[in-house]
Amino acid sequence: MTSTDKSLLGNTPVAGRIAPQSLLKIVQKIDQGSLTTKKALDLCIERISEFDHDIHAFTQVTPDKILQTLAGKGPLKGVGLAIKDVFDTADLATEYNSPIYANHQPAADAALVALARKAGCTPVGKTVTTEFAFFHPGETRNPYNLDHTPGGSSSGSAAAVATGMVPLALGTQTGGSVIRPAAFCGVAGFKPSSGLLPTVGMKTFSWSLDTAGFFAKGVEDIAFATSVLTGRHMKLEDKTPNMPVIGIARTHCWSEATEEYQQQFDSLLSSLSKFGFKLVDLPITDEYIAAFHAHQSIQDFEAKQALAWEYQTHPDKLSDLLRETLDFAQTIQPSDYDDARMIAEVGSQQMDEVFCEIDALISLSAPGSAPKGLTSTGSSIFNRTWTLFGLPCVNVPGLMSDNGLPFGIQIIGPYMQDHNCLIIAHLIEQSIQRHLDMTG
Amino acid sequence: MTSTDKSLLGNTPVAGRIAPQSLLKIVQKIDQGSLTTKKALDLCIERISEFDHDIHAFTQVTPDKILQTLAGKGPLKGVGLAIKDVFDTADLATEYNSPIYANHQPAADAALVALARKAGCTPVGKTVTTEFAFFHPGETRNPYNLDHTPGGSSSGSAAAVATGMVPLALGTQTGGSVIRPAAFCGVAGFKPSSGLLPTVGMKTFSWSLDTAGFFAKGVEDIAFATSVLTGRHMKLEDKTPNMPVIGIARTHCWSEATEEYQQQFDSLLSSLSKFGFKLVDLPITDEYIAAFHAHQSIQDFEAKQALAWEYQTHPDKLSDLLRETLDFAQTIQPSDYDDARMIAEVGSQQMDEVFCEIDALISLSAPGSAPKGLTSTGSSIFNRTWTLFGLPCVNVPGLMSDNGLPFGIQIIGPYMQDHNCLIIAHLIEQSIQRHLDMTG
Repeated sequence: MTSTDKSLLGNTPVAGRIAPQSLLKIVQKIDQGSLTTKKALDLCIERISEFDHDIHAFTQVTPDKILQTLAGKGPLKGVGLAIKDVFDTADLATEYNSPIYANHQPAADAALVALARKAGCTPVGKTVTTEFAFFHPGETRNPYNLDHTPGGSSSGSAAAVATGMVPLALGTQTGGSVIRPAAFCGVAGFKPSSGLLPTVGMKTFSWSLDTAGFFAKGVEDIAFATSVLTGRHMKLEDKTPNMPVIGIARTHCWSEATEEYQQQFDSLLSSLSKFGFKLVDLPITDEYIAAFHAHQSIQDFEAKQALAWEYQTHPDKLSDLLRETLDFAQTIQPSDYDDARMIAEVGSQQMDEVFCEIDALISLSAPGSAPKGLTSTGSSIFNRTWTLFGLPCVNVPGLMSDNGLPFGIQIIGPYMQDHNCLIIAHLIEQSIQRHLDMTG
Repeated sequence: MTSTDKSLLGNTPVAGRIAPQSLLKIVQKIDQGSLTTKKALDLCIERISEFDHDIHAFTQVTPDKILQTLAGKGPLKGVGLAIKDVFDTADLATEYNSPIYANHQPAADAALVALARKAGCTPVGKTVTTEFAFFHPGETRNPYNLDHTPGGSSSGSAAAVATGMVPLALGTQTGGSVIRPAAFCGVAGFKPSSGLLPTVGMKTFSWSLDTAGFFAKGVEDIAFATSVLTGRHMKLEDKTPNMPVIGIARTHCWSEATEEYQQQFDSLLSSLSKFGFKLVDLPITDEYIAAFHAHQSIQDFEAKQALAWEYQTHPDKLSDLLRETLDFAQTIQPSDYDDARMIAEVGSQQMDEVFCEIDALISLSAPGSAPKGLTSTGSSIFNRTWTLFGLPCVNVPGLMSDNGLPFGIQIIGPYMQDHNCLIIAHLIEQSIQRHLDMTG
């Protein structure tokens, strides 16, 4: 690692692997002329060649010579982008982690990939997804402990950012597929309001639920990328918020969280309260719980249509898990789906009313840290209702679990209030550092 | 035409070309054993080889030998299906009428195509679309008068059904791309509630607006196909409606309708009133008009993202019309889009309230009959607001214009009340025959 700028790398707590790059720092250095786009991209390639044989975040990497020709000209020039392998790419195969699509080469870039290129990003490679972004896992390992899952379905994107292989990665979330791997890999993850980022050219699993999102080192990096890629005002420094009112979302599944997770959460809340945050309990209503259950009916009913061709023509090439899910989905009636959509609408309206009284919700990003083994990517029980409601969610990194794996805090905002949601997530990110300083 | 069943063909007013096949009759005859799937499909091929050199409805036709091997086994077995060339097909090239996609071969079938195959349909070929289902026309001609447009963007699908080349065709509507060509070609067209049919594997122009739909001979044929393909109860015979209350939608663009069209519409209403329909005027509010204008902002803002790759990498291969639309779209701000979505929501809610008092709306499908020339596919001013609101719309055929071209009546129903909307459209279809008998 001679030619690159090591100052871009953060702390390296785990044998040098964990060292996310700050997108914002790269952009600033390039703007100031103290870093070239070439060196910024070289660092990505070096990190990949150093660590990916252990981590398996990438399904393929853009060849070095081509990479440098792809360096863009927009505000994100020099920013290496990892792309979850459910986004179509015109010059990289796109396989959705399914043998049905081995070596499949799309004709065009997905909309978000095209917008990222236009903004100056350079696609460094495609990252491991679970099969069709459902639950059957890929081979990516958790950078903090190779025996543990990185989470899913955006497994490779989260791990690639955590290890500093790229400063920015694209993911998707249908249940908890951005927030969970971000939490398990200790990086910031953002699932914006549904519709904020285009899903055109993403492999569909459930059109009502599939949402595009980002991974980056911290909330500031996420906010900057979102600002550039959407043309929306998302910068954090321009708005000094009052101390927000935060609803505590201890949902009906709260007992599924580990004892340690519940204790760390309570301890953080106690600090937040001392720092001046106003905290109120979110009442968990029957309508919320009904919506939680409706998520699966909607997802599976849409998946049986979205994957109708694959199920009809290549059932033998689907994982048992997915095939059995689609077998079951054949029995879901349109009336069940309609009922589920109605239940979701009622739950969503009720949550809109909740947000008249509070600025954001705080919750756990997952019930515990990354489970051991690579056979499961963990549970989305703390994510799926927010995805169903289309609400912006941020995984705020910073805390660690007793077992040395990252611990994720989730901030959820009102629909289309993504800017405020990021501002509050940033406040929480800063408060976590104060909390750690205080509690040692 | 020796081997096929000519009794499937309807009347042949224009030199034998206009003779739509009834899907329902085909299905009944096959069920009764008086028609084989082979003969049913042979008729499609014969009609295509006889007429398509004049009509240019198809971009490609499944080779005869392969066609017969594709004959399915479900309730729509023997039904030849024409597929608008914006739906991906795994064994037929899909070009979106754009040179960017010349000979493009997708890996998979679009969801709706896969569902149609499963239901027994046989894909007979791909039909001409305008470029990316926007306005730049294809080469299809109106079967009633080759010097006139068939309408667009689902040009080939409408013309293929009108001429009996197929009994069923898939189309899409973002503004008026199903209802208008159905009207211009004198067939039934159905744009269901948004979300009723999957759009996965359809080329996206505007994800909020793009809706899949069908063309068939009459409303009964449409209802049967929708019933089978959605698994929803849509059959018409099982429900005897009371005489419905119909709102007359003389929208703010009404003066754009030709004098003859306004007169024929009024004459039909006069008959409907005599037949016992309760007719009330739809008040055209400022909110409705604002929503009408919001349609374009939403469509263009989403199109600039959906077609970002094409616009960035192949601007020279876009039509002037589309490129200029996308040039302009670059200036639409996210806040304009958000405002437009809010305006659409307000208009949509107001229309929901209107539907508490009425069962359906009646309007013209287009401001006049198919314009002369192939440089424009006509106007969507009488369609786009209903598409924006996601409401089910049916073009009811039966009336003719003075110039010998078809005249379309449009029935619009409340959201997700597609069954009722089809029942009322069928009542209107029958009433049009009584009206014609009465007025001679």
